Amino acid sequence: MIKVSILGATGYTGHELVKILAGHPGAELIDLSAKLEAPVMIEDEFPDLAGRISMSCGPPEMGRIIQKSDVAFLALPHTVSMKCASQLLDGGVKVIDLSADFRLKSKDVYREWYGVDHEKPKLIDQAVYGLPEVNRAMLAGSTLVAKPGCYPTAAILALAPLMGQGVVDESRIIIDAKSGVTGAGRKAALALLFAECNESVRAYRVGTHQHTPEIDQELSLLAGGKIGVIFAPTLVPTNRGILCSCYLKLEKSISGKAALDIYHRFYSEAPFVRVLKEEEWPDTKHVTNTNYCDIGIGLIREKRELVVVAAIDNLVKGAAGQAVQNMNIMCGYDEREGLI
Amino acid sequence: MIKVSILGATGYTGHELVKILAGHPGAELIDLSAKLEAPVMIEDEFPDLAGRISMSCGPPEMGRIIQKSDVAFLALPHTVSMKCASQLLDGGVKVIDLSADFRLKSKDVYREWYGVDHEKPKLIDQAVYGLPEVNRAMLAGSTLVAKPGCYPTAAILALAPLMGQGVVDESRIIIDAKSGVTGAGRKAALALLFAECNESVRAYRVGTHQHTPEIDQELSLLAGGKIGVIFAPTLVPTNRGILCSCYLKLEKSISGKAALDIYHRFYSEAPFVRVLKEEEWPDTKHVTNTNYCDIGIGLIREKRELVVVAAIDNLVKGAAGQAVQNMNIMCGYDEREGLI
Amino acid sequence: MIKVSILGATGYTGHELVKILAGHPGAELIDLSAKLEAPVMIEDEFPDLAGRISMSCGPPEMGRIIQKSDVAFLALPHTVSMKCASQLLDGGVKVIDLSADFRLKSKDVYREWYGVDHEKPKLIDQAVYGLPEVNRAMLAGSTLVAKPGCYPTAAILALAPLMGQGVVDESRIIIDAKSGVTGAGRKAALALLFAECNESVRAYRVGTHQHTPEIDQELSLLAGGKIGVIFAPTLVPTNRGILCSCYLKLEKSISGKAALDIYHRFYSEAPFVRVLKEEEWPDTKHVTNTNYCDIGIGLIREKRELVVVAAIDNLVKGAAGQAVQNMNIMCGYDEREGLI
Amino acid sequence: MIKVSILGATGYTGHELVKILAGHPGAELIDLSAKLEAPVMIEDEFPDLAGRISMSCGPPEMGRIIQKSDVAFLALPHTVSMKCASQLLDGGVKVIDLSADFRLKSKDVYREWYGVDHEKPKLIDQAVYGLPEVNRAMLAGSTLVAKPGCYPTAAILALAPLMGQGVVDESRIIIDAKSGVTGAGRKAALALLFAECNESVRAYRVGTHQHTPEIDQELSLLAGGKIGVIFAPTLVPTNRGILCSCYLKLEKSISGKAALDIYHRFYSEAPFVRVLKEEEWPDTKHVTNTNYCDIGIGLIREKRELVVVAAIDNLVKGAAGQAVQNMNIMCGYDEREGLI
Repeated sequence: MIKVSILGATGYTGHELVKILAGHPGAELIDLSAKLEAPVMIEDEFPDLAGRISMSCGPPEMGRIIQKSDVAFLALPHTVSMKCASQLLDGGVKVIDLSADFRLKSKDVYREWYGVDHEKPKLIDQAVYGLPEVNRAMLAGSTLVAKPGCYPTAAILALAPLMGQGVVDESRIIIDAKSGVTGAGRKAALALLFAECNESVRAYRVGTHQHTPEIDQELSLLAGGKIGVIFAPTLVPTNRGILCSCYLKLEKSISGKAALDIYHRFYSEAPFVRVLKEEEWPDTKHVTNTNYCDIGIGLIREKRELVVVAAIDNLVKGAAGQAVQNMNIMCGYDEREGLI
Repeated sequence: MIKVSILGATGYTGHELVKILAGHPGAELIDLSAKLEAPVMIEDEFPDLAGRISMSCGPPEMGRIIQKSDVAFLALPHTVSMKCASQLLDGGVKVIDLSADFRLKSKDVYREWYGVDHEKPKLIDQAVYGLPEVNRAMLAGSTLVAKPGCYPTAAILALAPLMGQGVVDESRIIIDAKSGVTGAGRKAALALLFAECNESVRAYRVGTHQHTPEIDQELSLLAGGKIGVIFAPTLVPTNRGILCSCYLKLEKSISGKAALDIYHRFYSEAPFVRVLKEEEWPDTKHVTNTNYCDIGIGLIREKRELVVVAAIDNLVKGAAGQAVQNMNIMCGYDEREGLI
Repeated sequence: MIKVSILGATGYTGHELVKILAGHPGAELIDLSAKLEAPVMIEDEFPDLAGRISMSCGPPEMGRIIQKSDVAFLALPHTVSMKCASQLLDGGVKVIDLSADFRLKSKDVYREWYGVDHEKPKLIDQAVYGLPEVNRAMLAGSTLVAKPGCYPTAAILALAPLMGQGVVDESRIIIDAKSGVTGAGRKAALALLFAECNESVRAYRVGTHQHTPEIDQELSLLAGGKIGVIFAPTLVPTNRGILCSCYLKLEKSISGKAALDIYHRFYSEAPFVRVLKEEEWPDTKHVTNTNYCDIGIGLIREKRELVVVAAIDNLVKGAAGQAVQNMNIMCGYDEREGLI
Repeated sequence: MIKVSILGATGYTGHELVKILAGHPGAELIDLSAKLEAPVMIEDEFPDLAGRISMSCGPPEMGRIIQKSDVAFLALPHTVSMKCASQLLDGGVKVIDLSADFRLKSKDVYREWYGVDHEKPKLIDQAVYGLPEVNRAMLAGSTLVAKPGCYPTAAILALAPLMGQGVVDESRIIIDAKSGVTGAGRKAALALLFAECNESVRAYRVGTHQHTPEIDQELSLLAGGKIGVIFAPTLVPTNRGILCSCYLKLEKSISGKAALDIYHRFYSEAPFVRVLKEEEWPDTKHVTNTNYCDIGIGLIREKRELVVVAAIDNLVKGAAGQAVQNMNIMCGYDEREGLI
């Protein structure tokens, strides 16, 4: 039984982590903490948990957490996360960081997109980018995992099989991603009010979203060459779900079947990726509350253009579920343990 | 006072037409009809209209409609529309057709995308494509107007100013459009049920949507050369609204200000197009229940790429509002009469 | 042309007031203000207004407002409102107060439910409770109007015709009201986030909502005796709309037709109340964006029980629309001017 | 391992049954059927199931179902259900009927509210009303269970502890219930379209809903006397969830604590009922996707009136979850097996 702590348990991701881990047969939740004035019972903060789990959640006591935990999940704001991670690793606790702090391999790129200096640059190399479908082997022995961002999870899963294959023009990859509102976190902000988001579809941070360099980095690694995607997010009125549409120009003529084969081969060992039939398109509701990523592809405009659409639940495969999938691999469990 | 009839008054577009025309100072609604077993009062079909309008709506009586109407709005299914239009024109009634029947200038393309032969090919040439921001001059004297599709309205308004300017690569234009559910019409279909659409974001007819050739045709005319766009729609859980995101590779270096100038110039006489400041992005809720089209632009990836996003209300600027705007121009009224 | 100012223009009610008054043929908006650090353009705060109105909105300058205005609308928090009202009235400006400050005739009841002392008790008597369907005559010459709360508007319109008629048991009136989220105002609060309200139906402040004494007061006046209702609100995931269901035990046997007659008689001069046929029930979407109140009634359980259901748009008939209706009556205009 | 069949697997309730039973450690799904022209794969009908279950679903083959099943779940329309139930019982299969066919103990009442004669009146007595919190003992040895309706589940759980206690006036019980749209079933109907239900709150079948006699019957049994409730449903725009508000006049003075004690005592052995603290009110989102029923109570109007509010997920505790809870008890499993 792995002893597990969650730091940042009162956000949407923290909530989801508690739910998943409370039902995980190989994990025991031993500490919940969050930025709070005083401790609360987690089932008072999230009444859906009542009867399923009863635990106090207070300001983090690092000494206690280090002493008791095998693995810590950090659902913290960036910059806060890197400091905690460092302490926990020094104390021998494995860390799964859900913030952006260890995703980018270049501290210059980190500074450029997040506007602050990285305080623990030595840990960056140690961190494994926790996308199991791409980095499964590296995750097995790792002690620090950077859980991918929600948009990058969908985008990279949509595009990874094609990178470096000479199939598509990698110089102009367009990613149009639609996300539900929990993607913005659980914070009191006018722009996230029900009456501001309902009956609203809005583009935001087009070309400037902080997940862009993460997608670039991982696709570049896969392609074996520098890739700079065009990434544009749109906020849509759902609680959960990302639908990520990718537009790719074909470099060489290819049949739909051949394109599908590339995906089936790439994901033959990936239990959470479901590749749909040609010209079937994903729907976020089919992955809601699950760790699945659904991928649909189609060849259009006289087969000169390939469209790939991926759907995930941003709080599960895009956050808490994938973090638990990482834990499973790090700790030698079946990747699917505790997950749907 | 223009005497006006609406054929197909019980759909979402018909409903919107009734609402707008009932409040139009220069129009008098004289006949409402729809495919019905027996007449109903329109305020029983749409109780929001009670107290504002009280009219019978029954199966169309073409003789009566022809005799009494100056202008007829056809909110009918395609193929039905072309037959009615022909009769009405023969009877001296001006026609504003909201179906797809007279939008495509080639009957071969019509057959290819709509799967049936065009029965009134001679009328095709007579029809003016009713996008006032592009074809205002031609609309003034016209007798048959093909009201543009909802997606093409948003897409063409987003792209028109750039066509033929040598600014963007016209060989690969990507249009990712998100639409609310009324876009699919008021018909009992499982896929359109509340519980199927709510908490759902789904791609559909990627590269195969019937609005594609219409966008191609109009952009080609504007560009002075053959354009074939990549068009992918997504259904999102709102009642109304289209957000249309266009991805364009720059052919020549240009500043944001210069790009904006192109838009401001092109739309200097267009009262219903609002060009936003650079890197301000539209939100469908800002155009809901209005005839406005909001357009935002941004230069990204070291200014190599231009993104243009347009928002409309699919039932107003994308349908009934634009049809009334067409009527205003055809009949010599101020374009804005009766519209917000 | 009445010169009009709006204090508190940046909330949901303020926004709605701006929209309605900008299109009102007999009113001229001359000043917008709100609690702001620095002035903004109202069309930047609410981009839907762009092209329709362009005005600065800054911290209120009372001197200027008093000098220029005939009528001021106060969409301010309670306690703030009473101070402004007093100043404006002293300066000769007519006041329509949308807060709760002048609704309750007893300053003790005010203290009990709002937790503060009333600072302008002398003005309370001067204020007319601005429900035109009940108090039309008193509104004509008034200088201070207390616009009813959103819930009381729906509840009183549903119940007024029955009060004092000996038809129903007035000792136990149950009001179960469902409201959309704009009813809670435009403020950054966790409980009002999209992801907290969407897919959520929740009871709140059952029996303790501050609108209770207002309903009691007005029904008591109508009944000629003390009434204390059971009032329970529920938050539902819509932007707008209140559906107010009232449960009443019949004191004497009555037919459905006779019950309907009572309503038709009571509202014979009320252009914004629509009484539905027996056992037709209102739907909030039929009144959205309008000043209408739809009322449906039915006799159930062997005609021993009467159910009355009323629907309004909380931001229009429940707030801004009714405030403008008040202005119209105060200033001698047709009650419907500028309203749908 | 219990061998289980589902008849009517393609509705919302059928879908939920498949999901729950596919993950149930003590049940094996051996047959899925539905009214279909030709068999489909259930994971094609409901793509969220892909990777979790793969089974054919075709027209029911009663011989095969009878031969192979220990238990059959009937998620069928009423009248269809009674015929199948009879056949299955004759074949020795235990039946859990999710339709209304065996809920009412009087065939006259059945005829009155469902408009048809009951064809298997002899089975009525055999059927146990499957509300475990009330009838747990009777369920253990039963062969035919009538799963309660969704509204009755919420209403009876809210009211059962008070019945026959002399605490409340049982002659006038008012139940105002709000339901999400899946409650109406998965059928193509205009009134259930997204654009008809979104931004809509509507009362319907006030006093005439077919669940009324079921609530009357069960409360009467509990009270030991004839009860006739006032029941009014409202449709609200969520996928799932019922919030059921009950208004009760106190017969004798009672403290909040004493009232709560009644509930805690009554539900001391009920793992799926969560009684909230005094004046905490339920939110449907806290029970979504779970088999819980949350109940909140409050004393209002100088403690003369008791309000009880219950929340359930209509598809889980209101349908599939409760049906599985019934199966667990019938078959000697822990009541919670396979359920959250």
